Amino acid sequence: MEFTLSCPIPINEYPIITMAHGSGGVLSHNLIGKMFMAAFGNEILAEGHDGAVFGVPEGRLAYTTDSFVVNPVFFPGGNIGDLAVNGTINDLVCCGAKPLYLSAGFILEEGLPMEDLWKIVLSMKDAAERGEVKIVTGDTKVVDRGKGDKIFINTSGVGTIPEGINISPRNSSPGDMIILSGRIGDHGVAIMSARSGLEFETKIISDTVALNGLADKIFHTTLNIHVLRDPTRGGVATTLNELCESAGVGMVIDEEKIPVSGEVRGACEILGLDPLYIANEGKLIVILPEIEADRVLKAMKQHPAGAEASIIGRVTSEHPGIVRMTTSIGSSRIVDMLTGDQLPRIC
Amino acid sequence: MEFTLSCPIPINEYPIITMAHGSGGVLSHNLIGKMFMAAFGNEILAEGHDGAVFGVPEGRLAYTTDSFVVNPVFFPGGNIGDLAVNGTINDLVCCGAKPLYLSAGFILEEGLPMEDLWKIVLSMKDAAERGEVKIVTGDTKVVDRGKGDKIFINTSGVGTIPEGINISPRNSSPGDMIILSGRIGDHGVAIMSARSGLEFETKIISDTVALNGLADKIFHTTLNIHVLRDPTRGGVATTLNELCESAGVGMVIDEEKIPVSGEVRGACEILGLDPLYIANEGKLIVILPEIEADRVLKAMKQHPAGAEASIIGRVTSEHPGIVRMTTSIGSSRIVDMLTGDQLPRIC
Repeated sequence: MEFTLSCPIPINEYPIITMAHGSGGVLSHNLIGKMFMAAFGNEILAEGHDGAVFGVPEGRLAYTTDSFVVNPVFFPGGNIGDLAVNGTINDLVCCGAKPLYLSAGFILEEGLPMEDLWKIVLSMKDAAERGEVKIVTGDTKVVDRGKGDKIFINTSGVGTIPEGINISPRNSSPGDMIILSGRIGDHGVAIMSARSGLEFETKIISDTVALNGLADKIFHTTLNIHVLRDPTRGGVATTLNELCESAGVGMVIDEEKIPVSGEVRGACEILGLDPLYIANEGKLIVILPEIEADRVLKAMKQHPAGAEASIIGRVTSEHPGIVRMTTSIGSSRIVDMLTGDQLPRIC
Repeated sequence: MEFTLSCPIPINEYPIITMAHGSGGVLSHNLIGKMFMAAFGNEILAEGHDGAVFGVPEGRLAYTTDSFVVNPVFFPGGNIGDLAVNGTINDLVCCGAKPLYLSAGFILEEGLPMEDLWKIVLSMKDAAERGEVKIVTGDTKVVDRGKGDKIFINTSGVGTIPEGINISPRNSSPGDMIILSGRIGDHGVAIMSARSGLEFETKIISDTVALNGLADKIFHTTLNIHVLRDPTRGGVATTLNELCESAGVGMVIDEEKIPVSGEVRGACEILGLDPLYIANEGKLIVILPEIEADRVLKAMKQHPAGAEASIIGRVTSEHPGIVRMTTSIGSSRIVDMLTGDQLPRIC
């Protein structure tokens, strides 16, 4: 990404964020009016309201929120800014919605370099453009040095759910197939390697990406989809366990069908981690009737975010609440929900 | 407020928040499933989706966000929880909306006492009930000890704007009257006194309250209202300056008409603060055509949140962008926007 826009706040004069940038006074006003408007500027934000105002058609809305506290703030393949935009887009996608509008709430630590903030804001602008959403309302707070960690970002989002789409974690049905959109573990391992200073032979970069394009491919094939879910914190293992619990079903997955890159596998061995529990930020789990599975898989493979999609298992009426995995040596074991805290602050 | 519900997480077993509560694994799952569901439980949240799904009629929506980093977390008259709910309700009110749904995003510092979290969550529940909104979606992150400050809360909100209401900061018109709903400075001074350990003769408590009931009174009188704004960070002075800038108008206010309690005035003298710049969390500025002013003032006075409402000034075509104040000794001075940082982290 090239930073073609230059920072509208003179960095020589204001090299760092100070408490006064969160005061509601002149410096807050300039930060919002100049930096955020320059990056996110749209007619709704420009209204200068306490909130955004826009029209909606009659129908169903999806509405979601996520706070991002990833450490480090800049990591291979992205930063907290595009992660925050993509993450909320993806939560809307997982409700079956077309993402439309996002909010952005910043909690800045006193001393944050102004240049870092500008890079993050530009990444958010780019991610919003790629994800076809508008950032229409926001808020900025500053906390004392040592009372935060550079920058935390909350995004929330709203989107409209088209007629005929009915996605819910309760909808998994015995006999349904489980599709995973691609390789797992890249985001978590990229964060861990950045944090530990580990260098791997091949650079592992975060998979952070907006999934609405991939969801469009799916829904253009069929509306007969039961569940969409992005396996973020806790990884594929925890997500599938939650879905089993929500619908009162069991699942059987096949270890050999779950795509993991050699680099991630190697890094996990070094770090003592299991890829099944590692967060992803650009992957989608699709649960759908068997009759639709092959067509949807084919459609997903036509999209860059789904090129390595694979049918990894199926939903069962047996062992409700439990995910069983057939391993590569032919045995079968229970895949539990994550218990401890394998990877803190990966999003 | 009485805490009649007991904490659904066994406090003996889990006395504090640990990193694992933010992992996405079992402890996160219990925190969300037990504590947040017990407090906020409603049919939309119970769906267990990545986001909330609800129906809306065709029309205009208002959408807003605010992060809360107030220090201390518990203060006279409230805590960060009810402040976060009331604050977002009030931002929706200031768009002319009927607040409907809120999101809640928690950033918890490792070591936060579980009991404190439960108290805060219960205050949010009570504030949401009083403000007639539902908390329908949320998120929880945990940061390492020393990388946060006990708890930060982001709330966002959506509401519907009834037909015929057209509120915008651009709408102030020369000749319009300016109504202030009550005494200023209570919130900021309550925070400062709690922080500094100062004791005043009369306890000053925060004015945090949801303003949708007061707004209903106003709109039942007339829809012919130009601007609503809550004078939070930066106080009445900064808010009026922003409104002058938005609409390209000037304003003249009368110092004697601005209600300030004797306690707040005294505390401000001790602390070297100006009440005009101090944050309020339960006050409303109403700008409206002169012809409506008396009727609306009368209606506002019938509501507890507007009992001390007063017409404090008017909008002018002279000196655009500038707020002038007639002082109690008859002179006139310019009231600037807040420049430094008078009161950090008051919300």
